Amino acid sequence: MTGTEVLTGRISDQNGPWLSEQLLALGVDVAHITICGDRPADLAAQLRFLAEQGVDLIVTSGGLGPTADDLTVATVAEFCGRELRLDPELEEHIADIIRRWRPDTPDIDEGPTRVGIRKQAMVPAGAASLPPTGTAPGVVIPAVGGPTPIPTVVILPGPPGELQAMWPSAIAAPTVAEVLARADDLQQATLRAYGLHEAQLAETLRLAETRVPEFDRLEITTCLRRGELDMVTRFASADAGVYRQLLDVLTEHHGRQIFSTDGSTIEDQLVEALGGRLIATAESCTGGLVAARLTDRPGSSEYVMGGVVSYSNAAKADLIDVPAEMIAEHGAVSEQVAAAMAEGARRRLKTDVAVSTTGIAGPGGGTEAKPVGTVCFGVAIAGRPTHTVTRRFPGDRERVRALTTTAALHLVVQQLRRADSEN
Amino acid sequence: MTGTEVLTGRISDQNGPWLSEQLLALGVDVAHITICGDRPADLAAQLRFLAEQGVDLIVTSGGLGPTADDLTVATVAEFCGRELRLDPELEEHIADIIRRWRPDTPDIDEGPTRVGIRKQAMVPAGAASLPPTGTAPGVVIPAVGGPTPIPTVVILPGPPGELQAMWPSAIAAPTVAEVLARADDLQQATLRAYGLHEAQLAETLRLAETRVPEFDRLEITTCLRRGELDMVTRFASADAGVYRQLLDVLTEHHGRQIFSTDGSTIEDQLVEALGGRLIATAESCTGGLVAARLTDRPGSSEYVMGGVVSYSNAAKADLIDVPAEMIAEHGAVSEQVAAAMAEGARRRLKTDVAVSTTGIAGPGGGTEAKPVGTVCFGVAIAGRPTHTVTRRFPGDRERVRALTTTAALHLVVQQLRRADSEN
Repeated sequence: MTGTEVLTGRISDQNGPWLSEQLLALGVDVAHITICGDRPADLAAQLRFLAEQGVDLIVTSGGLGPTADDLTVATVAEFCGRELRLDPELEEHIADIIRRWRPDTPDIDEGPTRVGIRKQAMVPAGAASLPPTGTAPGVVIPAVGGPTPIPTVVILPGPPGELQAMWPSAIAAPTVAEVLARADDLQQATLRAYGLHEAQLAETLRLAETRVPEFDRLEITTCLRRGELDMVTRFASADAGVYRQLLDVLTEHHGRQIFSTDGSTIEDQLVEALGGRLIATAESCTGGLVAARLTDRPGSSEYVMGGVVSYSNAAKADLIDVPAEMIAEHGAVSEQVAAAMAEGARRRLKTDVAVSTTGIAGPGGGTEAKPVGTVCFGVAIAGRPTHTVTRRFPGDRERVRALTTTAALHLVVQQLRRADSEN
Repeated sequence: MTGTEVLTGRISDQNGPWLSEQLLALGVDVAHITICGDRPADLAAQLRFLAEQGVDLIVTSGGLGPTADDLTVATVAEFCGRELRLDPELEEHIADIIRRWRPDTPDIDEGPTRVGIRKQAMVPAGAASLPPTGTAPGVVIPAVGGPTPIPTVVILPGPPGELQAMWPSAIAAPTVAEVLARADDLQQATLRAYGLHEAQLAETLRLAETRVPEFDRLEITTCLRRGELDMVTRFASADAGVYRQLLDVLTEHHGRQIFSTDGSTIEDQLVEALGGRLIATAESCTGGLVAARLTDRPGSSEYVMGGVVSYSNAAKADLIDVPAEMIAEHGAVSEQVAAAMAEGARRRLKTDVAVSTTGIAGPGGGTEAKPVGTVCFGVAIAGRPTHTVTRRFPGDRERVRALTTTAALHLVVQQLRRADSEN
């Protein structure tokens, strides 16, 4: 996996996690993710390291561009002891692509553009190339046995869109399919909890260790994310019963906090809880994040009517009718205002449900009574009294905004279910 | 760097990029980022690999929790050939922290909680511990010379907030400071372009190679991000002149696309271009992402009044007065509607400036005339005719939404500057 842009802190690596998830789903046990810059020596060292670990498959991403700093294919080819050869058909194919998206390019047949195209059309001897999903083709290099065996290597482009589009043809390549056929029969189960501290889960897991026979056949990972605690467990299909026993222990102790054992996310559950009802948002401190998360989802226009980012007091009054006197009396960060925001959004956007956030994300604006991280929520549901609550979140501005967004989604689901159970 | 949660695809690693950026700023050349799961053998193999590469410093993150799967300190201690010893003072310090945030904990002095605390209070012989910023202390282990030298190792917690809070005390530790003192005098310069294709930049870089003497003293990385092309260049301070010559060549060819050479982001430039003016948003396909990005910034309440997520046609009419007939005649995705959205938001939110987005993010909703990725923008500035434009973006829903958000920010900056130059 190459990427100086990761080393320089510009971006965090999306491809490693994505590829791992795909491979895991295919039963492949992913042991290492390595990232290096554009120095061939560093990449070569990582390839040697991975080969020495006895892995069956190496997948690289990135370093396939036309720029001189993109050296993955050449470096991997040398590592595999294979010569690079120009594939004339591939060269023309890439040239055609560039002609299509840059019809104006003057020197497509000569000059620097052609140099870049030719560079991208070099394929290691005996390797198969994967059709470009951008301009860069991928490469599959078969394994070689012997005293110092070389694993199968799959070379993919760096842009996540291109990489993900190329993945199906990569795993369909005979040499790769042959490796995947040897993968163990691994399963992965995800449990999601909200309002549960990692240390509390740790204690219950210690207890389960003593209660559940063959507990050690489960590979458990816990991960905090945006205020939710995910527990990912991997096990051989034969040990599914062991996992079920663990689930029983966890449910017994944390049934209230565990909101998902089937992999569903809170977004999935929100759509289900809405059951066709329409929703709107009224956001202050989250500044649009709640609406953005609701509309992330394809087809969300079916149930998301829209929302208001009432960042200023004037906006609260003008757009969703929050009385200026109320803000003056209780402050913009108050349950009264949160309720008025939710009700105003519901009325103005003509929906069945509306959720509001108003709080102090920081770093400024905190007071003794309402320190940074204080957030008031409102949930308005047609035909019911509006529900409000105040929470206090830790961390910096970004964290407070993220935790508030997650809390808003959980609050809506909780209130919708309560409404349904009481009606 | 440990993290099964990364291997399982749950999250992407934030700590690697963040640490790299910090180290780089200190002049440290970061060669490798490695990620493995909670298997001690995998972590040990990576430690050996990094030591063999002759690095001076290894920084690990994660695996310090109370759970049994957190084995970083024990594994690193064994790698360094140091025994683990319980630090009673540290144990009490951690217990105090837990008492503070979980006063209700029953078995703080006995039972599973104490087991977890004691685990976190184990320190390798001869190592220094770093005060916890959550519950987990960090560790600094001094280097050891000899035939197979062991580099200085810094062990940090996994949660980005805790890790970043602990960083200052980590680099202040004498053994670490001593390593950092040996770092080269590296500089990093960032150039940002918008509307420039990576392949075009690649061509110009090839040209610069022939024009700029000592070009090869620059380490250049290009990185596409949310529709912007970043070029990060690293060089010894003595070679600053070489970088300036490269800048001249790039400006000559791509002056119009290069919008930043001082590291400033489009958000920075937007605030500057506003120059005290107030802004509002009216979003359809971006569903709140533009407002969220504007309000990411501390102090943004000074100039962001708010916004409207008019996802449904009704919302467009009710909240920002887009005539239903206009939508019926031209469609919701049209420059007419984009203009009406921006003007309506500006009027309703009483601002000087407003920007709107309405488009087809996909996967559904595309037509022959308006395929997925088609987005109309509007920018309304007080006292000027409203500017509108239609763009077509590639990629999936997430990509279209991200590219649209970036485009909106650039459009506002461009129009504000035009307004100022013409007034």
